[in-house]
Amino acid sequence: MEFLVRFESMPPDSMGSQEREHLRGQERERATELRAEGVLKRLWRVPGRRGVVGLWEADDATLLHDALASLPMFPWMHDVTVEPLATHPQER
Amino acid sequence: MEFLVRFESMPPDSMGSQEREHLRGQERERATELRAEGVLKRLWRVPGRRGVVGLWEADDATLLHDALASLPMFPWMHDVTVEPLATHPQER
Amino acid sequence: MEFLVRFESMPPDSMGSQEREHLRGQERERATELRAEGVLKRLWRVPGRRGVVGLWEADDATLLHDALASLPMFPWMHDVTVEPLATHPQER
Amino acid sequence: MEFLVRFESMPPDSMGSQEREHLRGQERERATELRAEGVLKRLWRVPGRRGVVGLWEADDATLLHDALASLPMFPWMHDVTVEPLATHPQER
Amino acid sequence: MEFLVRFESMPPDSMGSQEREHLRGQERERATELRAEGVLKRLWRVPGRRGVVGLWEADDATLLHDALASLPMFPWMHDVTVEPLATHPQER
Amino acid sequence: MEFLVRFESMPPDSMGSQEREHLRGQERERATELRAEGVLKRLWRVPGRRGVVGLWEADDATLLHDALASLPMFPWMHDVTVEPLATHPQER
Amino acid sequence: MEFLVRFESMPPDSMGSQEREHLRGQERERATELRAEGVLKRLWRVPGRRGVVGLWEADDATLLHDALASLPMFPWMHDVTVEPLATHPQER
Amino acid sequence: MEFLVRFESMPPDSMGSQEREHLRGQERERATELRAEGVLKRLWRVPGRRGVVGLWEADDATLLHDALASLPMFPWMHDVTVEPLATHPQER
Amino acid sequence: MEFLVRFESMPPDSMGSQEREHLRGQERERATELRAEGVLKRLWRVPGRRGVVGLWEADDATLLHDALASLPMFPWMHDVTVEPLATHPQER
Amino acid sequence: MEFLVRFESMPPDSMGSQEREHLRGQERERATELRAEGVLKRLWRVPGRRGVVGLWEADDATLLHDALASLPMFPWMHDVTVEPLATHPQER
Repeated sequence: MEFLVRFESMPPDSMGSQEREHLRGQERERATELRAEGVLKRLWRVPGRRGVVGLWEADDATLLHDALASLPMFPWMHDVTVEPLATHPQER
Repeated sequence: MEFLVRFESMPPDSMGSQEREHLRGQERERATELRAEGVLKRLWRVPGRRGVVGLWEADDATLLHDALASLPMFPWMHDVTVEPLATHPQER
Repeated sequence: MEFLVRFESMPPDSMGSQEREHLRGQERERATELRAEGVLKRLWRVPGRRGVVGLWEADDATLLHDALASLPMFPWMHDVTVEPLATHPQER
Repeated sequence: MEFLVRFESMPPDSMGSQEREHLRGQERERATELRAEGVLKRLWRVPGRRGVVGLWEADDATLLHDALASLPMFPWMHDVTVEPLATHPQER
Repeated sequence: MEFLVRFESMPPDSMGSQEREHLRGQERERATELRAEGVLKRLWRVPGRRGVVGLWEADDATLLHDALASLPMFPWMHDVTVEPLATHPQER
Repeated sequence: MEFLVRFESMPPDSMGSQEREHLRGQERERATELRAEGVLKRLWRVPGRRGVVGLWEADDATLLHDALASLPMFPWMHDVTVEPLATHPQER
Repeated sequence: MEFLVRFESMPPDSMGSQEREHLRGQERERATELRAEGVLKRLWRVPGRRGVVGLWEADDATLLHDALASLPMFPWMHDVTVEPLATHPQER
Repeated sequence: MEFLVRFESMPPDSMGSQEREHLRGQERERATELRAEGVLKRLWRVPGRRGVVGLWEADDATLLHDALASLPMFPWMHDVTVEPLATHPQER
Repeated sequence: MEFLVRFESMPPDSMGSQEREHLRGQERERATELRAEGVLKRLWRVPGRRGVVGLWEADDATLLHDALASLPMFPWMHDVTVEPLATHPQER
Repeated sequence: MEFLVRFESMPPDSMGSQEREHLRGQERERATELRAEGVLKRLWRVPGRRGVVGLWEADDATLLHDALASLPMFPWMHDVTVEPLATHPQER
């Protein structure tokens, strides 16, 4: 089942620029894995913001939560919203 | 997977009281079937309103939509919101 | 450029069921054309509602408006929102 | 009487990871007691967030408040909402 | 247990002025009964509007709903909100 | 004239527990005085929160402000809302 | 005591233009009386809308309600909000 | 002084298509005059909707209101918002 | 042209009480000047809050901004809203 | 394609006044370049706030994001909203 997921993420100001760069690298790696597994299907940037909109696929909300929580940036993600999507009859 | 579903429902003023009573009877019947199938697990009334909150279970959002759309009252349901629920670690 | 578009659509109560069915057929046809042109890329149903979320592609907002306004259901579409999407660096 | 209760909870950044783990353990223990007493009936996780939705039962809002305030995490709970639920005629 | 209840009520324009007056009289009568039973404790008018705020007492939300639904104006009440109130320690 | 007043109050984290306890004691004392003067008529706790709803009486909004500002907790009160209440014809 | 009052007003479409003109005339007359009594102190138009913002003075919210309800346009006023104003120390 | 003005406009369903076309023609004519006078500086369409965003210039809000009210579509304009704009130092 | 302006203002906790008192004095002085110039016409306190509502007069939004920015408290003002007011026909 | 972009920007309190002045100078320089390139077409100040509204032109949302992210103030910009604008038929 597909979900539309939004979140903003912002490492704390106290984090040094090197640690921040390292975190971003890890985030990209984990995202690549989730894409390979078919869990993360598309990702867009909300223009002008540090937020993203993504199209995710998971068997249920529990597995979706586990995928989101596996992102290294998870502790600094906020304003997360998850919207369940139903298949449109035109696409059945 | 479980979903928390809210909606208000109100047959139109133009519907006669007999037709309305008939519709309510059909609604109860269909709800009973959905309970027997394990799709509708709990239903509460929002006090003071014509709205309900329900706990539903369906494999995905498409099947949930089909269940909701099978309710005879569906054409007069409004302000419908569907919230996906993840299993809490304490209940795993 | 991609856009995330939401709308609800509801033909008026006064429209007869035959005319409504005809309108739905025309809507499906026009949507099929827009898919063939690559303008309408994905369409999901918002579970429990008469609303949809769609992923659209158009050179700019003017062409997107023209595509949306070409839908036979356009006069009865409401609560339309259009969100511009930027490419995420991971997908560049 | 049943209540639908939502809250997010987040121990402060200044709290060490050991103290945080200890707090989580205490939280689980107290939740287990409240389940045994029939006060906490179900708990779900809001996917992607640190928030929960729970179904609680208490004689009145004062006793519900006492139960919520007895959670070790209470001082760090925020955005708490409590919704009173009425029995639906179908379940009487 | 006490509840803070708000609603606006407005008989339809199509109702004649005599019928409306009759309805208002019945509403006052039922309200008087609910006061005598200790269910309706206070009622205020929201200045400038056709809305009221009331302090109600009922054993639970189901009985509160039954009291509200017993008002002759109930079919024309809208924007109803019910807020559960807990006893403040200063008043215990 | 009566007012419905809501606020949340939270002394800062930096305040020591002894100072906090002292502040709470002073708050209770001042509230007792305001009750004796007929300014504070009822106080309820919003379940699950650090917020209160109160029924206050004052000749006008200026005197009401002075009463609220006389509370020792005033510097840490936030999300304060004041709603003017009109007498309902049923209570005249 | 002063109040800031907003409302929009719109006679129904079914009202003929002559009746509407008559109503407007009566509204102006009543407003003139309320100004003479010192109840209506200032009135502004919200640009682009059929709404007004007004500065009113009344001993309490009950008398303010009576003044607003005395306007011939009252049955067609909607989205009415009343905000109580306290005297600012600079103006005492 | 410049203002950012938004509105949606929708002639009533009961208006015949010829009358509607005539109204649209008059609207375009009046808009052309307002552009010539320098009152209406730019007009954009909100994609997917019957709404517009416009950049207007007028000496004050009263003259702006008069300009908006001079549009033949004014009686069917709704959700009108007017935002005052200040000159940015970079453009002084 | 008149504007209705709201804002809350709160010097930071780190500011000492002497500096705060000095700032308040400067604020009163500047407000007195703006009153003398006819820019600040009325000021009300929002009861229970640290916010004010004011009636201001300025030739345009740029001059209004300059007046607001000239207040010594400006760096600590937040939630500022500015609403343009049009003259009501009854007051022309 | 044109976009209406809003944002507030506020360098952190910890930044010294010299660094802040330097940042403002760089911001003006980059804005001048974006104006020369035709990307930033107009900029207004929201009166009373540290926010701006701007009219931007970019081929798509990705290039718009790049332009916004190239502003030296970008790390301290918040509440950014981007609204896509379609050409109005009157301006085609």
